[in-house]
Amino acid sequence: MNNNLLLEAAQLDTADGLAAFRTRFLLPENKIYLDGNSLGALPAHVPARVADAIERQWGQDLISSWNKNAWIDLPSKVGAKIAALVGANADEVIAADNTSINVFKVLLAALQLRPERKVIVSDIDNFPTDLYMVQGVNTLLGQQYELRFVKRADLETALDTHTAVLLLTEVDYRTGERLDMAALTARAQAVGALCIWDLAHSAGAFPVVLNACKVDFAIGCGYKYLNGGPGAPAFLFVAREHQTRVLPVLTGWMGHAEPFAFTPDYAPASGMLRFTAGTPSVLGLTALDAALEIWDQASIAAVEQKSFALTDLFMRAMQPLEATYGFCCVTPLLPAKRGSQVSYTHPDGYAIMQALIAAGVIGDFRAPDIVRFGFAPLYLSFVDVLEAVQRLEQIMQTGAWQQPEFSNRRKVT
Amino acid sequence: MNNNLLLEAAQLDTADGLAAFRTRFLLPENKIYLDGNSLGALPAHVPARVADAIERQWGQDLISSWNKNAWIDLPSKVGAKIAALVGANADEVIAADNTSINVFKVLLAALQLRPERKVIVSDIDNFPTDLYMVQGVNTLLGQQYELRFVKRADLETALDTHTAVLLLTEVDYRTGERLDMAALTARAQAVGALCIWDLAHSAGAFPVVLNACKVDFAIGCGYKYLNGGPGAPAFLFVAREHQTRVLPVLTGWMGHAEPFAFTPDYAPASGMLRFTAGTPSVLGLTALDAALEIWDQASIAAVEQKSFALTDLFMRAMQPLEATYGFCCVTPLLPAKRGSQVSYTHPDGYAIMQALIAAGVIGDFRAPDIVRFGFAPLYLSFVDVLEAVQRLEQIMQTGAWQQPEFSNRRKVT
Repeated sequence: MNNNLLLEAAQLDTADGLAAFRTRFLLPENKIYLDGNSLGALPAHVPARVADAIERQWGQDLISSWNKNAWIDLPSKVGAKIAALVGANADEVIAADNTSINVFKVLLAALQLRPERKVIVSDIDNFPTDLYMVQGVNTLLGQQYELRFVKRADLETALDTHTAVLLLTEVDYRTGERLDMAALTARAQAVGALCIWDLAHSAGAFPVVLNACKVDFAIGCGYKYLNGGPGAPAFLFVAREHQTRVLPVLTGWMGHAEPFAFTPDYAPASGMLRFTAGTPSVLGLTALDAALEIWDQASIAAVEQKSFALTDLFMRAMQPLEATYGFCCVTPLLPAKRGSQVSYTHPDGYAIMQALIAAGVIGDFRAPDIVRFGFAPLYLSFVDVLEAVQRLEQIMQTGAWQQPEFSNRRKVT
Repeated sequence: MNNNLLLEAAQLDTADGLAAFRTRFLLPENKIYLDGNSLGALPAHVPARVADAIERQWGQDLISSWNKNAWIDLPSKVGAKIAALVGANADEVIAADNTSINVFKVLLAALQLRPERKVIVSDIDNFPTDLYMVQGVNTLLGQQYELRFVKRADLETALDTHTAVLLLTEVDYRTGERLDMAALTARAQAVGALCIWDLAHSAGAFPVVLNACKVDFAIGCGYKYLNGGPGAPAFLFVAREHQTRVLPVLTGWMGHAEPFAFTPDYAPASGMLRFTAGTPSVLGLTALDAALEIWDQASIAAVEQKSFALTDLFMRAMQPLEATYGFCCVTPLLPAKRGSQVSYTHPDGYAIMQALIAAGVIGDFRAPDIVRFGFAPLYLSFVDVLEAVQRLEQIMQTGAWQQPEFSNRRKVT
């Protein structure tokens, strides 16, 4: 490893205004965790908060906790905290269900607002669950929609006055490319379509600016850069102007105007509550709520700046490996064009990633050939970044990887 | 209190084969908890299990836990445990999402199988979220269905050859009446309809016999008699014969045949996995999975027998209060006709229940005028039951209740 890089990393760590946040996470020793974009690390105060929710709130206060410990308010409370990170008003975001189900909710809301339009446009390289949910909706509605899933370069030409909805993910889960939310939203709206953004790899990684971009709907994930824990509740955003104009489709009792009146006829709650359905997951929301407290002190703008610097350092350190070992960087070089991840293709990507994980550097693999490294600025140092590259270089030098069996059915790391 | 009843209660406790299970729950001191039908009590081993999932599995093993700690298998594993309690095969039940969303899934599955039929029948006194979800589905599908929500006595005449689905809850959440699953399922199927049962107040309270009744679909709740914790994941059942014949509507990536192939086209997984959508709630599933271990030792048949005895004792002890203070029992007197709860109407029901809760007996109130007492045989004694009645009697004797403000928006106990 180039000595200048090592010196630079040490200097960057010394100057890092976010360095102290690392102590607020419980991380395994001797591991470098570059997969916070898949599952965020454990904030140190979360175990006690969940234990309190279980032992005191559930165990001792039992059913009275819905009021006494404000369980009933968790979806709105957590939503408001997330709103501050994604450029939304507190009453425009609610935490509920998982991302896939929230895609369903906002997609059907958007289609309601454009009943005469029969085209749904998305990116063929969008995260698959978003595309799957669109396909499910179209099957449900009798295949009345034309689904234009096109390459990113063809998105703008795919939009026309028949387009009801443009559904995009802001950061490509494979390449890390960050799409231009302002431009694409404006383009969709210029032809009269509505725009839905999936913020799975955005929220908590950099400042998302939903209202500044006039976004109509958004959804996102609680367990990546928001560190809410495995399978944490997801969130959804509906711009204020749309909230009362759309009726929910998953019309469960928690979205009713008076859930405890137990009347047989559905009447939607005002505001975002109507986009909740069944009883909320209190344990999951408690962990996510606690994890979000970190943002009381951490600046999302500072997180983005550190992300730029971490990924930049990583990419520079990787350059010799690209040339020597056949890695090909698929992540944009311009910082503002990428999320907080860097990805490379390599024909032996899966085997190499398994060897790297065995060597204590945890990244992940995405079929067919992408090794992916996520950089969570709250708990990663610049020295970590170079150490990861050094361990990868050792593996490549010794050729110490075997081709393990790959299964598409099991979760792959 | 009648001395004979006190003696009988002591004798019943002595002979109670399930008495030892009380020590496996953490309950508040000096409280009698008669609301396990709304939120089950905390099993003593659950805090450590969730702490392990958070601190070791999430904190230390991080993303590798999807395989290493088998998070990916939790929906099926938990489903199989529930299957044993509801008379289903292990591969016919999966844990996922919440009950409301699972109603949506099975309702649309059933409608797919009866495309030519345009009537949905349910009980007007069904738990409202079930009715709300039907209304949401009908709105979504262009109001093509006639919704016959009728009084229970009129259910059979409401069924005809236009009926696609009969959707019922086995135990009435207000009155505790247990419906005849075998007869009503047969009646629906006799006209060619499919039958969906909501087991919210059944699973874990008595042996449900889905396959013996040839039930088509079922859904149920993890946080009541299954003690999975607040907002625990729910479950759904699809009879084997239907599993491959219906396509899911909430077509998320976790229900894909190859979720980690990341292909853009949806293809359903085989079996119950296709009825999952997004990333599962690992913390909630972990708590529920742990809570279900109690059934390795506890017999659901024994639980039902004790439920009969607890509710019978309670009803007999309440008889003098009915006559004197105007309580009116709305729960069937015949044990096999009721679930594990007893309810009374009283014009001051809400205020009385608040006073009773203040006196350490936790039941709940259901609008407009029902005081409801749930009996969870795993952690209730017969002496508890009489003590609850004695405390209620003291309140009624002194008239010590005030009319508090009632809100339909907040969770009411």
